[in-house]
Amino acid sequence: MPVAQPLFQRVAVIGLGLIGGSLAAALRENKLAEEVVGFDTRADELALGVELGVIDSAAESAAQAVSGADLVVLAVPVKATQSVLREIQPALNGDAIITDVGSTKSGFVNDVRAVLGHLPATVIPGHPIAGSEKSGIRAANPQLFAKHKVILTPADDACPQALGKVTAMWRACDANVLTMAAEHHDEVLAATSHLPHLIAFSLVDTLAGDDQNMDIFRYAAGGFRDFTRIAASDPVMWRDIFLSNRDAVLLTIDRFTQDLDQLRSAIADQDGDTLLRVFTRARAAREHFQKCSQDRPT
Amino acid sequence: MPVAQPLFQRVAVIGLGLIGGSLAAALRENKLAEEVVGFDTRADELALGVELGVIDSAAESAAQAVSGADLVVLAVPVKATQSVLREIQPALNGDAIITDVGSTKSGFVNDVRAVLGHLPATVIPGHPIAGSEKSGIRAANPQLFAKHKVILTPADDACPQALGKVTAMWRACDANVLTMAAEHHDEVLAATSHLPHLIAFSLVDTLAGDDQNMDIFRYAAGGFRDFTRIAASDPVMWRDIFLSNRDAVLLTIDRFTQDLDQLRSAIADQDGDTLLRVFTRARAAREHFQKCSQDRPT
Repeated sequence: MPVAQPLFQRVAVIGLGLIGGSLAAALRENKLAEEVVGFDTRADELALGVELGVIDSAAESAAQAVSGADLVVLAVPVKATQSVLREIQPALNGDAIITDVGSTKSGFVNDVRAVLGHLPATVIPGHPIAGSEKSGIRAANPQLFAKHKVILTPADDACPQALGKVTAMWRACDANVLTMAAEHHDEVLAATSHLPHLIAFSLVDTLAGDDQNMDIFRYAAGGFRDFTRIAASDPVMWRDIFLSNRDAVLLTIDRFTQDLDQLRSAIADQDGDTLLRVFTRARAAREHFQKCSQDRPT
Repeated sequence: MPVAQPLFQRVAVIGLGLIGGSLAAALRENKLAEEVVGFDTRADELALGVELGVIDSAAESAAQAVSGADLVVLAVPVKATQSVLREIQPALNGDAIITDVGSTKSGFVNDVRAVLGHLPATVIPGHPIAGSEKSGIRAANPQLFAKHKVILTPADDACPQALGKVTAMWRACDANVLTMAAEHHDEVLAATSHLPHLIAFSLVDTLAGDDQNMDIFRYAAGGFRDFTRIAASDPVMWRDIFLSNRDAVLLTIDRFTQDLDQLRSAIADQDGDTLLRVFTRARAAREHFQKCSQDRPT
């Protein structure tokens, strides 16, 4: 019986943080590649990747990693995308599939265009909606993406074979793969993830600056605790997300601020009907949301 | 050996929702009263209170319940306080201790003054910071207050014996009793509980009104889910809280809006330094908060 061919020959994973490391581990565990080569500018993380068996081998540079690779995964902070692309460009196979795992997608597409001069049909931008309180390659977990959503944002003229292979890779990691336009992804994420995080950071910072902050923290009830949990997220990563998804985030902030201002007016005017109507509608929307979302990405 | 005297002879609990019912059950379980009489305008809940053993007996009116009571607990919606006070006023024992469980405290004090003409020294306003996803007397749980905070807001000239007995009652329910001025309580709760709930209701409503709402709900990530959980809270109760705590809530909304607007400007101006500084400060505040709060009120 012939042995089944793996999906890829040589996969280069650039950036061995939690997401890059977990994808590398999942590629190996599910035998999706003949060889998984890793690179990270942090030499200790890179060595640990080999030691822990997350990658097959460590490259000495990003360019060396992508040399001969049929799949290149960029798992670096979104701000580093351009410099990594510049570094690997000369070594890239002409037909190599390129994907990424960044939280914003229009920015990635723009970075590719800025460095390569165009968006090759083999570029399939991606965003696994998965994470963990932990970070770094020690937390790498081949099961991280199981039952989680992965959003791919291929251009209209993306290569169907490339899209098919990246989709097959994530499905083999047990993820639910969705496809949409990059701009649409960024709007949806701005509303459902970026704005809530901005509000949480802002609220916690507002309260912490208050004279009565000890009391506020001591007597804080449930509502506040839910906010503080997401305010514990990585400040550098979030700075980069907000800089990268500027336009969609500004739009969603403005809509939110406008609606909050209407509630403020209702409170000032003692307009209980408006408050009740909005709160009831929000609770109904939440119940609807509960029904139409089965899995729990974090 | 003489049998220890219970703390109270006859306790009247007006309003048998989750909090009133749980306190009645805790009074009985801990033998803090000779007799726990309940009243509720919902005849079925009242009958259930007797059937479930949450109260010793059901009164036919609020006035009948408080007649002869040495402790009166108002556990009605904050909006109903004045009408209940008017109803019980003629039947109140002159030296009866009066307390409540409402989420705002200046409003309660104002209601007492409006109906009784002054704030009797035996009035000890209270707010147990406890709750549950459940509601109604079926969810009554004598352990609901264990390890939770109860904030009492006695006036400066409150009767020390009355304060002592209400404090002893909550301690016997295993709650952590704190005392502060009513205005201070309302400011702290506006910031830590009321504002987060308002933001959650507002955000969920904003998103639900969007054309892309199905997508937003389907792809929603962790940040959004934390928000939607508190947007599932009871709309009527929250309307009343916002109407009752108007001034403190308006103040905290304005501070929050101002700070959020600064972050908006930083994003618009691509000012990563400001974003990083605020996010880092918020995360540090959150870590501080984690350390100085041991128990988990909800």
